[in-house]
Amino acid sequence: MEIVFLGTGSMVPTKERNHQSIFVSHNGEGLLFDCGEGTQRQLKIANIRLGKLSKIFITHWHGDHVLGLPGLLQTLGSSDYERRLEIYGPEGTKKRVEHLLKGFSFNIDFEHEIFEISETVLNFKDFSVVVKSLEHGVPCLGYAIIEHDKRKIKTNVIKRLGIPDGPLLGKLQENKEIKWNNIVVLPKDATFVVKGKKIAIVLDTMLCNGVYALAKDADVLISEASYTSELEEKAEEYNHLTAKQAALAASQSNVEKLVLTHLSQRYKTPEKVLEEASTIFKKTIIAHDFMKIKV
Amino acid sequence: MEIVFLGTGSMVPTKERNHQSIFVSHNGEGLLFDCGEGTQRQLKIANIRLGKLSKIFITHWHGDHVLGLPGLLQTLGSSDYERRLEIYGPEGTKKRVEHLLKGFSFNIDFEHEIFEISETVLNFKDFSVVVKSLEHGVPCLGYAIIEHDKRKIKTNVIKRLGIPDGPLLGKLQENKEIKWNNIVVLPKDATFVVKGKKIAIVLDTMLCNGVYALAKDADVLISEASYTSELEEKAEEYNHLTAKQAALAASQSNVEKLVLTHLSQRYKTPEKVLEEASTIFKKTIIAHDFMKIKV
Repeated sequence: MEIVFLGTGSMVPTKERNHQSIFVSHNGEGLLFDCGEGTQRQLKIANIRLGKLSKIFITHWHGDHVLGLPGLLQTLGSSDYERRLEIYGPEGTKKRVEHLLKGFSFNIDFEHEIFEISETVLNFKDFSVVVKSLEHGVPCLGYAIIEHDKRKIKTNVIKRLGIPDGPLLGKLQENKEIKWNNIVVLPKDATFVVKGKKIAIVLDTMLCNGVYALAKDADVLISEASYTSELEEKAEEYNHLTAKQAALAASQSNVEKLVLTHLSQRYKTPEKVLEEASTIFKKTIIAHDFMKIKV
Repeated sequence: MEIVFLGTGSMVPTKERNHQSIFVSHNGEGLLFDCGEGTQRQLKIANIRLGKLSKIFITHWHGDHVLGLPGLLQTLGSSDYERRLEIYGPEGTKKRVEHLLKGFSFNIDFEHEIFEISETVLNFKDFSVVVKSLEHGVPCLGYAIIEHDKRKIKTNVIKRLGIPDGPLLGKLQENKEIKWNNIVVLPKDATFVVKGKKIAIVLDTMLCNGVYALAKDADVLISEASYTSELEEKAEEYNHLTAKQAALAASQSNVEKLVLTHLSQRYKTPEKVLEEASTIFKKTIIAHDFMKIKV
Protein backbone atom coordinates (compact mmCIF):
# COMPACT_ATOMS: atom_id res chain seq x y z
CA MET A 1 0.00 0.00 0.00
CA GLU A 2 1.09 3.55 -0.57
CA ILE A 3 -0.22 6.60 1.26
CA VAL A 4 -0.06 10.04 -0.35
CA PHE A 5 -0.99 13.01 1.81
CA LEU A 6 -2.85 15.46 -0.43
CA GLY A 7 -3.80 17.97 2.24
CA THR A 8 -2.55 18.23 5.81
CA GLY A 9 -4.05 21.48 7.08
CA SER A 10 -7.25 22.13 8.97
CA MET A 11 -10.17 24.52 8.43
CA VAL A 12 -8.15 27.39 7.00
CA PRO A 13 -5.60 26.41 4.36
CA THR A 14 -2.09 27.86 4.42
CA LYS A 15 0.47 28.37 1.69
CA GLU A 16 1.99 25.02 2.67
CA ARG A 17 -1.03 22.95 3.73
CA ASN A 18 -4.20 22.36 1.74
CA HIS A 19 -7.43 21.05 3.27
CA GLN A 20 -7.67 17.40 4.30
CA SER A 21 -7.33 14.52 1.89
CA ILE A 22 -5.38 11.28 1.96
CA PHE A 23 -4.97 8.92 -0.98
CA VAL A 24 -4.23 5.24 -0.34
CA SER A 25 -3.51 2.95 -3.28
CA HIS A 26 -3.66 -0.83 -3.04
CA ASN A 27 -3.16 -2.82 -6.26
CA GLY A 28 -5.89 -1.57 -8.56
CA GLU A 29 -7.81 0.29 -5.88
CA GLY A 30 -7.47 4.00 -5.14
CA LEU A 31 -9.05 5.12 -1.88
CA LEU A 32 -9.54 8.77 -1.05
CA PHE A 33 -10.12 9.62 2.60
CA ASP A 34 -11.85 13.00 2.72
CA CYS A 35 -11.83 15.46 -0.13
CA GLY A 36 -11.20 19.00 1.05
CA GLU A 37 -11.41 21.96 -1.32
CA GLY A 38 -8.67 21.78 -3.95
CA THR A 39 -8.17 18.02 -3.75
CA GLN A 40 -8.55 17.48 -7.50
CA ARG A 41 -5.68 19.88 -8.11
CA GLN A 42 -3.58 18.24 -5.40
CA LEU A 43 -4.14 14.88 -7.15
CA LYS A 44 -2.91 16.48 -10.37
CA ILE A 45 0.18 17.96 -8.71
CA ALA A 46 0.88 14.56 -7.12
CA ASN A 47 0.64 12.96 -10.58
CA ILE A 48 -2.17 10.64 -9.50
CA ARG A 49 -4.44 9.89 -12.45
CA LEU A 50 -8.15 10.31 -11.68
CA GLY A 51 -8.77 6.91 -13.28
CA LYS A 52 -7.04 5.32 -10.29
CA LEU A 53 -9.75 6.51 -7.92
CA SER A 54 -12.29 3.82 -6.96
CA LYS A 55 -13.65 4.69 -3.51
CA ILE A 56 -14.08 7.85 -1.45
CA PHE A 57 -14.49 7.66 2.32
CA ILE A 58 -15.81 10.75 4.08
CA THR A 59 -15.08 11.13 7.79
CA HIS A 60 -17.60 13.92 8.44
CA TRP A 61 -19.28 16.83 6.72
CA HIS A 62 -17.30 19.81 7.95
CA GLY A 63 -16.33 21.93 4.95
CA ASP A 64 -12.58 21.43 5.13
CA HIS A 65 -13.07 17.67 4.66
CA VAL A 66 -15.58 17.64 1.80
CA LEU A 67 -15.69 20.83 -0.26
CA GLY A 68 -13.46 19.38 -2.98
CA LEU A 69 -16.04 16.69 -3.70
CA PRO A 70 -18.34 18.55 -6.13
CA GLY A 71 -15.43 19.76 -8.27
CA LEU A 72 -13.86 16.31 -8.30
CA LEU A 73 -17.16 14.76 -9.38
CA GLN A 74 -17.54 17.40 -12.11
CA THR A 75 -14.06 16.68 -13.44
CA LEU A 76 -14.59 12.88 -13.27
CA GLY A 77 -17.90 13.32 -15.10
CA SER A 78 -16.29 15.33 -17.87
CA SER A 79 -13.28 13.03 -18.26
CA ASP A 80 -13.01 9.48 -19.58
CA TYR A 81 -13.44 8.03 -16.10
CA GLU A 82 -14.92 4.57 -16.58
CA ARG A 83 -15.05 3.07 -13.11
CA ARG A 84 -17.99 2.85 -10.77
CA LEU A 85 -17.19 5.27 -7.98
CA GLU A 86 -18.28 4.33 -4.47
CA ILE A 87 -18.70 7.06 -1.88
CA TYR A 88 -18.94 6.09 1.80
CA GLY A 89 -19.80 8.45 4.60
CA PRO A 90 -21.77 8.89 7.82
CA GLU A 91 -25.52 9.44 8.06
CA GLY A 92 -26.60 12.47 6.05
CA THR A 93 -24.06 11.86 3.29
CA LYS A 94 -26.65 11.33 0.52
CA LYS A 95 -28.46 14.56 1.31
CA ARG A 96 -25.20 16.53 1.52
CA VAL A 97 -23.98 15.28 -1.85
CA GLU A 98 -27.39 16.02 -3.35
CA HIS A 99 -27.20 19.62 -2.12
CA LEU A 100 -23.62 20.11 -3.31
CA LEU A 101 -24.52 18.86 -6.77
CA LYS A 102 -27.52 21.20 -6.93
CA GLY A 103 -25.17 24.03 -5.96
CA PHE A 104 -23.81 24.38 -9.50
CA SER A 105 -24.79 23.69 -13.07
CA PHE A 106 -23.55 20.27 -14.19
CA ASN A 107 -24.89 16.78 -14.77
CA ILE A 108 -22.89 13.99 -13.10
CA ASP A 109 -23.62 11.12 -15.46
CA PHE A 110 -20.99 8.53 -14.58
CA GLU A 111 -21.80 5.47 -12.50
CA HIS A 112 -21.51 6.09 -8.80
CA GLU A 113 -23.15 4.97 -5.58
CA ILE A 114 -23.36 6.56 -2.16
CA PHE A 115 -23.37 4.42 0.99
CA GLU A 116 -24.36 5.84 4.37
CA ILE A 117 -22.59 3.72 6.95
CA SER A 118 -22.06 3.45 10.68
CA GLU A 119 -19.78 1.12 12.67
CA THR A 120 -19.14 -1.87 10.41
CA VAL A 121 -16.51 -3.81 8.49
CA LEU A 122 -16.53 -3.41 4.71
CA ASN A 123 -15.00 -6.37 2.89
CA PHE A 124 -13.28 -5.85 -0.43
CA LYS A 125 -11.16 -8.15 -2.58
CA ASP A 126 -7.74 -7.54 -1.07
CA PHE A 127 -8.57 -5.70 2.13
CA SER A 128 -11.29 -4.74 4.52
CA VAL A 129 -12.13 -1.34 5.94
CA VAL A 130 -13.06 -1.18 9.59
CA VAL A 131 -15.39 1.72 10.37
CA LYS A 132 -15.71 3.19 13.87
CA SER A 133 -17.67 6.12 15.24
CA LEU A 134 -15.66 9.07 16.51
CA GLU A 135 -16.67 12.02 18.69
CA HIS A 136 -16.61 15.35 16.92
CA GLY A 137 -19.98 16.94 17.62
CA VAL A 138 -21.34 15.84 14.23
CA PRO A 139 -21.67 12.30 12.80
CA CYS A 140 -18.03 11.33 12.29
CA LEU A 141 -16.30 8.12 11.27
CA GLY A 142 -12.76 6.82 11.51
CA TYR A 143 -11.42 4.17 9.18
CA ALA A 144 -8.81 1.41 9.21
CA ILE A 145 -7.69 -0.37 6.06
CA ILE A 146 -6.57 -3.90 6.86
CA GLU A 147 -5.04 -6.01 4.11
CA HIS A 148 -6.20 -9.60 4.03
CA ASP A 149 -3.56 -11.97 5.37
CA LYS A 150 -1.71 -13.71 2.54
CA ARG A 151 -0.74 -17.39 2.49
CA LYS A 152 2.63 -17.78 0.78
CA ILE A 153 4.40 -20.92 -0.46
CA LYS A 154 7.37 -22.34 1.47
CA THR A 155 9.57 -22.71 -1.62
CA ASN A 156 12.06 -25.01 0.08
CA VAL A 157 9.28 -27.53 0.95
CA ILE A 158 7.79 -27.36 -2.56
CA LYS A 159 11.23 -27.84 -4.14
CA ARG A 160 11.98 -30.81 -1.89
CA LEU A 161 8.69 -32.49 -2.80
CA GLY A 162 9.13 -31.59 -6.48
CA ILE A 163 5.66 -30.03 -6.82
CA PRO A 164 5.48 -28.09 -10.11
CA ASP A 165 4.22 -24.51 -10.55
CA GLY A 166 0.49 -24.39 -11.29
CA PRO A 167 -2.94 -25.15 -9.81
CA LEU A 168 -1.63 -27.35 -7.00
CA LEU A 169 0.26 -24.44 -5.48
CA GLY A 170 -2.85 -22.28 -5.93
CA LYS A 171 -4.86 -24.79 -3.89
CA LEU A 172 -2.29 -24.73 -1.09
CA GLN A 173 -2.47 -20.93 -1.05
CA GLU A 174 -6.23 -21.26 -0.70
CA ASN A 175 -5.50 -23.24 2.48
CA LYS A 176 -6.55 -26.56 0.90
CA GLU A 177 -4.64 -29.84 1.16
CA ILE A 178 -3.37 -31.51 -2.02
CA LYS A 179 -2.12 -34.92 -3.10
CA TRP A 180 1.25 -35.25 -4.87
CA ASN A 181 2.99 -38.56 -5.62
CA ASN A 182 0.46 -40.24 -3.31
CA ILE A 183 1.50 -38.01 -0.41
CA VAL A 184 -1.05 -35.65 1.23
CA VAL A 185 0.48 -32.17 1.54
CA LEU A 186 -1.12 -29.95 4.17
CA PRO A 187 -1.23 -26.16 3.78
CA LYS A 188 0.24 -25.68 7.23
CA ASP A 189 3.35 -27.61 6.13
CA ALA A 190 3.82 -26.10 2.68
CA THR A 191 2.73 -22.50 3.26
CA PHE A 192 3.06 -19.70 5.79
CA VAL A 193 0.86 -16.71 6.55
CA VAL A 194 1.96 -13.11 6.04
CA LYS A 195 -0.15 -10.82 8.16
CA GLY A 196 -1.84 -7.97 6.27
CA LYS A 197 -0.76 -4.44 7.05
CA LYS A 198 -3.06 -1.99 8.82
CA ILE A 199 -3.44 1.74 8.25
CA ALA A 200 -5.72 3.62 10.66
CA ILE A 201 -7.12 7.03 9.80
CA VAL A 202 -8.41 9.13 12.68
CA LEU A 203 -9.48 12.59 11.59
CA ASP A 204 -11.31 15.11 13.72
CA THR A 205 -12.30 13.61 17.02
CA MET A 206 -11.82 13.76 20.75
CA LEU A 207 -10.09 10.87 22.42
CA CYS A 208 -12.69 8.07 22.50
CA ASN A 209 -13.06 4.30 22.21
CA GLY A 210 -13.18 4.51 18.41
CA VAL A 211 -9.67 5.99 18.32
CA TYR A 212 -8.24 3.10 20.32
CA ALA A 213 -10.14 0.45 18.33
CA LEU A 214 -8.82 1.84 15.05
CA ALA A 215 -5.28 2.39 16.34
CA LYS A 216 -4.83 -1.10 17.80
CA ASP A 217 -1.82 -2.84 16.18
CA ALA A 218 -1.75 -0.39 13.26
CA ASP A 219 1.38 -0.29 11.15
CA VAL A 220 0.58 3.35 10.50
CA LEU A 221 -1.77 5.45 12.61
CA ILE A 222 -2.64 8.68 10.84
CA SER A 223 -4.17 10.99 13.40
CA GLU A 224 -5.30 14.55 13.52
CA ALA A 225 -3.39 16.76 15.96
CA SER A 226 -5.04 20.13 15.59
CA TYR A 227 -3.43 21.61 18.69
CA THR A 228 -0.64 21.24 21.21
CA SER A 229 -1.44 20.72 24.88
CA GLU A 230 -1.26 24.37 25.84
CA LEU A 231 -4.49 24.71 23.83
CA GLU A 232 -6.06 21.60 25.37
CA GLU A 233 -9.18 23.56 26.34
CA LYS A 234 -9.62 24.75 22.76
CA ALA A 235 -9.15 21.18 21.54
CA GLU A 236 -11.87 20.05 23.93
CA GLU A 237 -14.19 22.90 22.98
CA TYR A 238 -13.92 22.05 19.29
CA ASN A 239 -13.77 18.25 19.76
CA HIS A 240 -10.22 17.86 18.52
CA LEU A 241 -7.10 15.99 19.61
CA THR A 242 -3.89 17.48 20.90
CA ALA A 243 -0.56 16.08 19.71
CA LYS A 244 -0.09 14.62 23.20
CA GLN A 245 -3.41 12.79 23.12
CA ALA A 246 -2.67 11.32 19.67
CA ALA A 247 0.72 10.16 20.92
CA LEU A 248 -0.80 8.62 24.04
CA ALA A 249 -3.29 6.68 21.91
CA ALA A 250 -0.44 5.43 19.72
CA SER A 251 1.71 4.42 22.69
CA GLN A 252 -1.15 2.45 24.25
CA SER A 253 -2.19 0.68 21.03
CA ASN A 254 0.92 -1.15 19.80
CA VAL A 255 1.24 1.23 16.86
CA GLU A 256 4.30 0.96 14.62
CA LYS A 257 4.35 4.54 13.31
CA LEU A 258 2.32 7.66 14.12
CA VAL A 259 1.75 10.32 11.44
CA LEU A 260 0.19 13.57 12.59
CA THR A 261 -1.87 15.70 10.24
CA HIS A 262 -4.67 18.35 10.29
CA LEU A 263 -2.42 20.93 11.94
CA SER A 264 -4.00 24.25 12.84
CA GLN A 265 -2.84 27.18 10.69
CA ARG A 266 -1.32 28.70 13.84
CA TYR A 267 1.61 26.25 13.62
CA LYS A 268 3.69 27.92 10.93
CA THR A 269 6.27 25.16 11.34
CA PRO A 270 5.44 21.82 12.92
CA GLU A 271 8.39 21.49 15.34
CA LYS A 272 6.33 22.16 18.46
CA VAL A 273 3.68 19.61 17.51
CA LEU A 274 6.35 17.02 16.74
CA GLU A 275 8.24 17.68 19.95
CA GLU A 276 5.13 17.24 22.10
CA ALA A 277 4.14 13.97 20.45
CA SER A 278 7.54 12.37 20.08
CA THR A 279 8.33 12.85 23.77
CA ILE A 280 5.53 10.34 24.39
CA PHE A 281 5.71 8.25 21.22
CA LYS A 282 9.11 8.27 19.55
CA LYS A 283 8.13 6.99 16.12
CA THR A 284 6.09 10.07 15.27
CA ILE A 285 6.37 12.11 12.10
CA ILE A 286 4.43 15.14 10.88
CA ALA A 287 2.71 14.81 7.52
CA HIS A 288 3.22 17.44 4.87
CA ASP A 289 1.39 17.89 1.57
CA PHE A 290 2.55 15.32 -1.02
CA MET A 291 4.42 13.19 1.56
CA LYS A 292 4.38 9.51 0.57
CA ILE A 293 4.60 6.48 2.84
CA LYS A 294 4.95 2.90 1.63
CA VAL A 295 3.37 0.37 4.00
CA MET B 1 -7.15 49.93 -9.22
CA GLU B 2 -5.13 46.76 -9.00
CA ILE B 3 -6.07 43.45 -10.59
CA VAL B 4 -4.73 40.17 -9.15
CA PHE B 5 -5.38 37.01 -11.13
CA LEU B 6 -6.07 34.25 -8.61
CA GLY B 7 -6.95 31.51 -11.08
CA THR B 8 -6.49 31.48 -14.85
CA GLY B 9 -7.41 27.92 -15.87
CA SER B 10 -10.69 26.47 -17.03
CA MET B 11 -12.77 23.47 -15.93
CA VAL B 12 -9.86 21.20 -15.04
CA PRO B 13 -7.12 22.85 -12.99
CA THR B 14 -3.47 22.28 -13.85
CA LYS B 15 -0.32 22.46 -11.76
CA GLU B 16 0.12 26.04 -12.98
CA ARG B 17 -3.46 27.30 -13.29
CA ASN B 18 -6.17 27.17 -10.64
CA HIS B 19 -9.88 27.62 -11.38
CA GLN B 20 -11.20 31.08 -12.23
CA SER B 21 -11.04 34.02 -9.88
CA ILE B 22 -9.98 37.63 -10.29
CA PHE B 23 -9.51 40.12 -7.44
CA VAL B 24 -9.83 43.84 -8.12
CA SER B 25 -9.05 46.31 -5.35
CA HIS B 26 -10.14 49.94 -5.42
CA ASN B 27 -9.45 52.06 -2.36
CA GLY B 28 -11.22 50.24 0.45
CA GLU B 29 -13.19 47.91 -1.81
CA GLY B 30 -12.14 44.38 -2.70
CA LEU B 31 -14.08 42.84 -5.56
CA LEU B 32 -13.85 39.16 -6.37
CA PHE B 33 -14.99 38.11 -9.82
CA ASP B 34 -15.86 34.40 -9.67
CA CYS B 35 -14.64 32.09 -6.96
CA GLY B 36 -13.45 28.77 -8.34
CA GLU B 37 -12.42 25.92 -6.06
CA GLY B 38 -9.30 26.81 -4.10
CA THR B 39 -9.77 30.58 -4.30
CA GLN B 40 -9.46 31.12 -0.53
CA ARG B 41 -6.02 29.48 -0.63
CA GLN B 42 -5.01 31.51 -3.69
CA LEU B 43 -5.96 34.67 -1.76
CA LYS B 44 -3.72 33.49 1.07
CA ILE B 45 -0.82 32.75 -1.27
CA ALA B 46 -1.30 36.18 -2.88
CA ASN B 47 -1.16 37.76 0.60
CA ILE B 48 -4.60 39.32 0.22
CA ARG B 49 -6.29 39.59 3.61
CA LEU B 50 -9.86 38.27 3.65
CA GLY B 51 -10.92 41.43 5.44
CA LYS B 52 -10.31 43.34 2.19
CA LEU B 53 -13.11 41.48 0.43
CA SER B 54 -16.34 43.46 0.12
CA LYS B 55 -18.18 42.20 -2.96
CA ILE B 56 -18.29 38.98 -4.96
CA PHE B 57 -19.54 38.97 -8.55
CA ILE B 58 -20.44 35.60 -10.07
CA THR B 59 -20.47 35.32 -13.86
CA HIS B 60 -22.33 31.98 -14.02
CA TRP B 61 -22.86 28.80 -12.07
CA HIS B 62 -20.54 26.34 -13.76
CA GLY B 63 -18.46 24.59 -11.12
CA ASP B 64 -15.07 25.98 -12.09
CA HIS B 65 -16.33 29.52 -11.41
CA VAL B 66 -18.09 29.03 -8.09
CA LEU B 67 -16.98 25.97 -6.11
CA GLY B 68 -14.63 27.97 -3.94
CA LEU B 69 -17.54 29.99 -2.59
CA PRO B 70 -18.77 27.70 0.24
CA GLY B 71 -15.25 27.28 1.64
CA LEU B 72 -14.57 31.00 1.43
CA LEU B 73 -17.84 31.75 3.25
CA GLN B 74 -16.97 29.16 5.92
CA THR B 75 -13.56 30.75 6.48
CA LEU B 76 -15.00 34.28 6.53
CA GLY B 77 -17.62 33.10 9.01
CA SER B 78 -15.03 31.62 11.34
CA SER B 79 -12.64 34.57 11.11
CA ASP B 80 -12.93 38.11 12.45
CA TYR B 81 -14.46 39.33 9.17
CA GLU B 82 -16.55 42.36 10.06
CA ARG B 83 -17.81 43.69 6.75
CA ARG B 84 -21.16 43.15 5.10
CA LEU B 85 -20.41 40.91 2.14
CA GLU B 86 -22.44 41.46 -1.01
CA ILE B 87 -22.76 38.65 -3.53
CA TYR B 88 -24.01 39.45 -7.03
CA GLY B 89 -24.89 36.86 -9.64
CA PRO B 90 -27.34 35.90 -12.38
CA GLU B 91 -30.81 34.47 -11.79
CA GLY B 92 -30.68 31.32 -9.69
CA THR B 93 -27.82 32.58 -7.53
CA LYS B 94 -29.79 32.56 -4.26
CA LYS B 95 -30.92 28.96 -4.71
CA ARG B 96 -27.40 27.81 -5.70
CA VAL B 97 -25.80 29.42 -2.63
CA GLU B 98 -28.53 27.92 -0.45
CA HIS B 99 -27.75 24.43 -1.78
CA LEU B 100 -23.99 24.85 -1.41
CA LEU B 101 -24.40 25.94 2.20
CA LYS B 102 -26.63 22.94 2.93
CA GLY B 103 -23.93 20.74 1.40
CA PHE B 104 -21.80 20.82 4.54
CA SER B 105 -22.14 21.38 8.25
CA PHE B 106 -21.55 24.99 9.16
CA ASN B 107 -23.51 28.10 10.13
CA ILE B 108 -22.66 31.23 8.15
CA ASP B 109 -23.48 33.89 10.69
CA PHE B 110 -21.81 37.00 9.30
CA GLU B 111 -23.74 39.73 7.56
CA HIS B 112 -24.14 39.09 3.85
CA GLU B 113 -26.64 39.72 1.11
CA ILE B 114 -27.21 38.02 -2.23
CA PHE B 115 -28.42 40.01 -5.23
CA GLU B 116 -29.77 38.31 -8.35
CA ILE B 117 -29.16 40.73 -11.18
CA SER B 118 -29.53 41.03 -14.94
CA GLU B 119 -28.37 43.79 -17.31
CA THR B 120 -27.98 46.90 -15.16
CA VAL B 121 -25.55 49.46 -13.81
CA LEU B 122 -24.63 49.17 -10.13
CA ASN B 123 -23.50 52.45 -8.61
CA PHE B 124 -21.02 52.44 -5.75
CA LYS B 125 -19.10 55.24 -4.04
CA ASP B 126 -16.04 55.44 -6.29
CA PHE B 127 -17.06 53.36 -9.29
CA SER B 128 -19.95 51.71 -11.06
CA VAL B 129 -20.23 48.16 -12.34
CA VAL B 130 -21.88 47.69 -15.71
CA VAL B 131 -23.57 44.30 -16.03
CA LYS B 132 -24.27 42.73 -19.42
CA SER B 133 -25.74 39.38 -20.43
CA LEU B 134 -23.40 36.97 -22.17
CA GLU B 135 -24.15 33.81 -24.17
CA HIS B 136 -22.91 30.63 -22.54
CA GLY B 137 -25.87 28.25 -22.54
CA VAL B 138 -26.66 29.10 -18.91
CA PRO B 139 -27.52 32.49 -17.35
CA CYS B 140 -24.20 34.31 -17.61
CA LEU B 141 -23.09 37.87 -16.89
CA GLY B 142 -20.11 39.95 -17.87
CA TYR B 143 -18.96 42.92 -15.81
CA ALA B 144 -17.16 46.21 -16.33
CA ILE B 145 -15.83 48.29 -13.46
CA ILE B 146 -15.79 51.97 -14.37
CA GLU B 147 -14.24 54.46 -11.98
CA HIS B 148 -16.18 57.66 -11.54
CA ASP B 149 -14.55 60.56 -13.37
CA LYS B 150 -12.62 62.79 -10.97
CA ARG B 151 -12.59 66.60 -11.03
CA LYS B 152 -9.13 67.87 -10.11
CA ILE B 153 -7.98 71.36 -9.22
CA LYS B 154 -5.93 73.40 -11.71
CA THR B 155 -3.27 74.37 -9.16
CA ASN B 156 -1.82 77.14 -11.32
CA VAL B 157 -5.25 78.88 -11.53
CA ILE B 158 -5.88 78.48 -7.79
CA LYS B 159 -2.42 79.86 -6.97
CA ARG B 160 -2.87 82.83 -9.28
CA LEU B 161 -6.23 83.70 -7.66
CA GLY B 162 -4.81 83.06 -4.17
CA ILE B 163 -7.65 80.72 -3.10
CA PRO B 164 -6.64 78.92 0.10
CA ASP B 165 -6.88 75.15 0.74
CA GLY B 166 -10.22 74.16 2.24
CA PRO B 167 -13.98 74.00 1.57
CA LEU B 168 -13.87 76.39 -1.41
CA LEU B 169 -11.70 73.95 -3.35
CA GLY B 170 -14.02 71.12 -2.30
CA LYS B 171 -16.96 73.02 -3.81
CA LEU B 172 -15.10 73.49 -7.09
CA GLN B 173 -14.35 69.74 -7.14
CA GLU B 174 -18.08 69.13 -6.70
CA ASN B 175 -18.53 71.14 -9.92
CA LYS B 176 -20.00 74.16 -8.11
CA GLU B 177 -19.04 77.78 -8.72
CA ILE B 178 -17.58 79.80 -5.86
CA LYS B 179 -17.00 83.47 -5.02
CA TRP B 180 -13.51 84.62 -4.01
CA ASN B 181 -12.48 88.28 -3.57
CA ASN B 182 -15.77 89.24 -5.28
CA ILE B 183 -14.88 87.20 -8.36
CA VAL B 184 -17.07 84.27 -9.46
CA VAL B 185 -14.83 81.29 -10.17
CA LEU B 186 -16.35 78.67 -12.43
CA PRO B 187 -15.47 74.97 -12.07
CA LYS B 188 -14.70 74.72 -15.77
CA ASP B 189 -11.98 77.38 -15.35
CA ALA B 190 -10.44 76.15 -12.09
CA THR B 191 -10.73 72.38 -12.47
CA PHE B 192 -10.26 69.64 -15.05
CA VAL B 193 -11.79 66.19 -15.36
CA VAL B 194 -9.75 62.98 -15.19
CA LYS B 195 -11.64 60.19 -16.86
CA GLY B 196 -12.16 57.06 -14.73
CA LYS B 197 -10.47 53.86 -15.81
CA LYS B 198 -12.45 50.91 -17.11
CA ILE B 199 -11.78 47.20 -16.57
CA ALA B 200 -14.01 44.77 -18.49
CA ILE B 201 -14.33 41.15 -17.43
CA VAL B 202 -15.69 38.73 -20.02
CA LEU B 203 -15.63 35.14 -18.82
CA ASP B 204 -17.25 32.20 -20.57
CA THR B 205 -19.27 33.35 -23.54
CA MET B 206 -19.59 33.20 -27.28
CA LEU B 207 -19.00 36.40 -29.20
CA CYS B 208 -22.15 38.49 -28.63
CA ASN B 209 -23.32 42.08 -28.16
CA GLY B 210 -22.57 41.93 -24.45
CA VAL B 211 -18.87 41.34 -25.15
CA TYR B 212 -18.64 44.45 -27.33
CA ALA B 213 -20.65 46.59 -24.90
CA LEU B 214 -18.32 45.65 -22.03
CA ALA B 215 -15.13 45.93 -24.06
CA LYS B 216 -15.86 49.40 -25.49
CA ASP B 217 -13.07 51.85 -24.53
CA ALA B 218 -11.79 49.54 -21.77
CA ASP B 219 -8.34 50.25 -20.40
CA VAL B 220 -8.07 46.55 -19.69
CA LEU B 221 -10.26 43.90 -21.30
CA ILE B 222 -9.94 40.59 -19.46
CA SER B 223 -11.39 37.93 -21.70
CA GLU B 224 -11.64 34.19 -21.67
CA ALA B 225 -9.84 32.44 -24.53
CA SER B 226 -10.53 28.78 -23.90
CA TYR B 227 -9.32 27.65 -27.31
CA THR B 228 -7.31 28.63 -30.37
CA SER B 229 -9.00 28.86 -33.77
CA GLU B 230 -8.19 25.33 -34.87
CA LEU B 231 -10.71 24.28 -32.20
CA GLU B 232 -13.27 26.88 -33.25
CA GLU B 233 -15.98 24.21 -33.58
CA LYS B 234 -15.32 23.05 -30.03
CA ALA B 235 -15.45 26.65 -28.84
CA GLU B 236 -18.83 27.03 -30.54
CA GLU B 237 -20.14 23.73 -29.19
CA TYR B 238 -19.27 24.71 -25.63
CA ASN B 239 -20.15 28.42 -26.01
CA HIS B 240 -16.61 29.68 -25.57
CA LEU B 241 -14.34 32.21 -27.25
CA THR B 242 -11.23 31.52 -29.27
CA ALA B 243 -8.15 33.69 -28.78
CA LYS B 244 -8.81 35.13 -32.25
CA GLN B 245 -12.38 36.12 -31.38
CA ALA B 246 -11.27 37.81 -28.14
CA ALA B 247 -8.60 39.73 -30.06
CA LEU B 248 -11.10 40.77 -32.74
CA ALA B 249 -13.45 42.09 -30.06
CA ALA B 250 -10.56 44.05 -28.51
CA SER B 251 -9.42 45.47 -31.84
CA GLN B 252 -12.94 46.67 -32.69
CA SER B 253 -13.64 48.21 -29.28
CA ASN B 254 -10.87 50.76 -28.71
CA VAL B 255 -9.35 48.62 -25.96
CA GLU B 256 -6.03 49.65 -24.46
CA LYS B 257 -4.84 46.22 -23.28
CA LEU B 258 -6.20 42.69 -23.72
CA VAL B 259 -5.53 40.05 -21.06
CA LEU B 260 -6.48 36.48 -21.93
CA THR B 261 -7.41 33.96 -19.25
CA HIS B 262 -9.45 30.73 -18.76
CA LEU B 263 -7.07 28.72 -20.93
CA SER B 264 -7.97 25.10 -21.56
CA GLN B 265 -5.71 22.59 -19.79
CA ARG B 266 -4.58 21.39 -23.24
CA TYR B 267 -2.34 24.47 -23.59
CA LYS B 268 0.62 23.42 -21.46
CA THR B 269 2.30 26.72 -22.35
CA PRO B 270 0.37 29.74 -23.60
CA GLU B 271 2.57 30.67 -26.61
CA LYS B 272 0.08 29.44 -29.22
CA VAL B 273 -2.81 31.33 -27.64
CA LEU B 274 -0.73 34.51 -27.39
CA GLU B 275 0.51 34.23 -30.97
CA GLU B 276 -2.99 33.86 -32.38
CA ALA B 277 -4.36 36.84 -30.46
CA SER B 278 -1.42 39.21 -30.80
CA THR B 279 -1.38 38.86 -34.58
CA ILE B 280 -4.76 40.60 -34.51
CA PHE B 281 -4.38 42.76 -31.40
CA LYS B 282 -0.82 43.60 -30.53
CA LYS B 283 -1.29 44.68 -26.92
CA THR B 284 -2.31 41.22 -25.73
CA ILE B 285 -0.87 39.38 -22.76
CA ILE B 286 -1.71 36.02 -21.22
CA ALA B 287 -2.69 36.01 -17.57
CA HIS B 288 -1.02 33.64 -15.15
CA ASP B 289 -1.92 32.85 -11.55
CA PHE B 290 -0.87 35.70 -9.21
CA MET B 291 -0.17 38.12 -12.07
CA LYS B 292 -0.87 41.72 -11.00
CA ILE B 293 -1.87 44.67 -13.17
CA LYS B 294 -2.14 48.26 -11.97
CA VAL B 295 -4.75 50.27 -13.86
